[in-house]
Amino acid sequence: MTAVHLEILKEDTRTRARLGKLHTPHGVIDTPVFMPVGTQGTVKTITPEEIKEIEAGIILSNTYHLFLRPGHELIKEAGGLHRFMNWDGAILTDSGGFQVFSLGDLRTIKESGVEFRSHLDGSSQFLSPEIATQVQMALGSDIVMAFDECAPYPCTHKYAKDSLERTTRWLKRCKETLTTTDTQALFGIVQGGMYEDLRRQSAAEIIELDLPGYAIGGLSVGEPKDLMYEVLDYTVPLLPREKPRYLMGVGSPDALIEGVMRGVDMFDCVLPTRIARNGTAMTRYGKVIIRNAGSAHDFGPIDPTCDCYTCRNYSRAYIRHLIKAEEVLGLRLMTIHNLRYLQNLMKEIREAIKEDRLPEYRQKCFSDYGYI
Amino acid sequence: MTAVHLEILKEDTRTRARLGKLHTPHGVIDTPVFMPVGTQGTVKTITPEEIKEIEAGIILSNTYHLFLRPGHELIKEAGGLHRFMNWDGAILTDSGGFQVFSLGDLRTIKESGVEFRSHLDGSSQFLSPEIATQVQMALGSDIVMAFDECAPYPCTHKYAKDSLERTTRWLKRCKETLTTTDTQALFGIVQGGMYEDLRRQSAAEIIELDLPGYAIGGLSVGEPKDLMYEVLDYTVPLLPREKPRYLMGVGSPDALIEGVMRGVDMFDCVLPTRIARNGTAMTRYGKVIIRNAGSAHDFGPIDPTCDCYTCRNYSRAYIRHLIKAEEVLGLRLMTIHNLRYLQNLMKEIREAIKEDRLPEYRQKCFSDYGYI
Repeated sequence: MTAVHLEILKEDTRTRARLGKLHTPHGVIDTPVFMPVGTQGTVKTITPEEIKEIEAGIILSNTYHLFLRPGHELIKEAGGLHRFMNWDGAILTDSGGFQVFSLGDLRTIKESGVEFRSHLDGSSQFLSPEIATQVQMALGSDIVMAFDECAPYPCTHKYAKDSLERTTRWLKRCKETLTTTDTQALFGIVQGGMYEDLRRQSAAEIIELDLPGYAIGGLSVGEPKDLMYEVLDYTVPLLPREKPRYLMGVGSPDALIEGVMRGVDMFDCVLPTRIARNGTAMTRYGKVIIRNAGSAHDFGPIDPTCDCYTCRNYSRAYIRHLIKAEEVLGLRLMTIHNLRYLQNLMKEIREAIKEDRLPEYRQKCFSDYGYI
Repeated sequence: MTAVHLEILKEDTRTRARLGKLHTPHGVIDTPVFMPVGTQGTVKTITPEEIKEIEAGIILSNTYHLFLRPGHELIKEAGGLHRFMNWDGAILTDSGGFQVFSLGDLRTIKESGVEFRSHLDGSSQFLSPEIATQVQMALGSDIVMAFDECAPYPCTHKYAKDSLERTTRWLKRCKETLTTTDTQALFGIVQGGMYEDLRRQSAAEIIELDLPGYAIGGLSVGEPKDLMYEVLDYTVPLLPREKPRYLMGVGSPDALIEGVMRGVDMFDCVLPTRIARNGTAMTRYGKVIIRNAGSAHDFGPIDPTCDCYTCRNYSRAYIRHLIKAEEVLGLRLMTIHNLRYLQNLMKEIREAIKEDRLPEYRQKCFSDYGYI
């Protein structure tokens, strides 16, 4: 048995959606699931207890950031990331690949790995499949992501092909490096840009390595949403039915529903927490910009149908005051609301799958609630 | 019966310390008490539930800040400050006097009140005894502070005399304005700088107004601590035994103990929350600068003898990481610790009074624990 496996409870008859339970060394998580992002070993502004109150069972943390500060060796010395940050739920760590490639001129790609300059102090750094995996072993995350290249959008067929083939070669090195497979599960990442033949090639190559889970990378990178859905339409069916499927970097409500309907089990995105800190609330009635003057004398909650701590206790007027006055509590209350909103959305999606009404639920969300 | 009164449980035989219960419309508070500061309608970074977990029953909020933003009328519309910020404990509001006088060149003092420019937008504003009291009536605080002038240190005898006499005239206008004495208690403020004759004059003048409580203002404004203690030595005995006594702006551990021994019941200060956000922890062993490299590999709590949420769950190394990475959770954890430390200190002081060992407790703190 691998460290992580998916128990499929039900497969939808009219869509590719699946209802399941993701078993990890740090708890069992209902899927489809949205994972809040805790970049620097903390989901920004909130405590582990608050993550639990929101009912999130798995979070994502970033190898790139923790590698640079405070350093994975220090976290290992602390007993691993779970203990360091006092979180006993599951953790997925990305590989740092996405961040390193985002550095543009500040990085040089070689077959051995990527040389880059730290965004913190400009120091020269190096990440490779081996190092990214060793860092994640030191962090002790439940799910270890392969060190891949996320090709930009748009990019040529040749660039996407070279990139995915290097990603496959790097994946093999990640797999060879990870010796802790009893407690950590390595997920491979399908790349290939927006090219169907390349997605097929990438999927075929990485599935051959028989990994405990597979991610779809290189989406939500600036392409139109319809194009993302098209790629999912032909990519997801290539993946093994019994393994968890993770769509990286997606967190808008409409894309979560569309992704689930195409067979995705896991999602993550900084969107809900980032826009929260900018004063924008996510609700089933669409986004609400709490900073705006319209909320100044609104003594009702952000969303009267929401059960989060924020909506149970505070008015839009008070939250707006906190945001305008640059008070940290405003960031916290907004973050709690947005994360709870997404957890509730995923719960409703799971219930809809269970009750054979996912397409109708989607229709209700899209037309009645105005997501798009 | 006034809105607020002090029940004296015990008077120390060897010092002027008193053990009591402060009865307010929003709960009964054990005295001597330290009041955390919530300047803008929030104790920076933490929730009302966290204030309760720290076991603080009364907080201070600032008239000047709330008057300018979001405005007292809006808070009144929300149902008052307690409801606006979701805090059902007691609230003391200052009068805005201290902030207005701190503006220096940006304000003009007249007999009618003070004209000043807002620190937010430079707009022309006016506060007077009547307006400051009306603002506090709109806020609905349990304890309303008189609009006074806090004379600078050092200042001449003439300046201090003129200032205290205006403070007395203004106090009468505050008293005439406050019509909500069944739910709000007006505290007068003894001024007079560092001059004993002026402190006597000020105390005599304000006691004549028979108010439910008295504060000692104009201390902790830059003078040596010994001078502050000297002023307390001759000022506190001038105040009526049965009324609560509040020393404004004092929150260092040594000054809290010295103040209690001189007969003070209530204290407030931004110090514990401000230095928390700068990465400095208060402990019974002295200050600990968590930002420093010495904490980098320290996997123990800030203080192993502390029972706060932070010390029960997080290491110095993790908190240091959060502070260095500019993560909000670091500010929260530090704030919770420093406030809980002061609440525990006050609890120990109360127990020492109860058990007739306050001078010994002071000695233990000062010599064993190294406060000064």
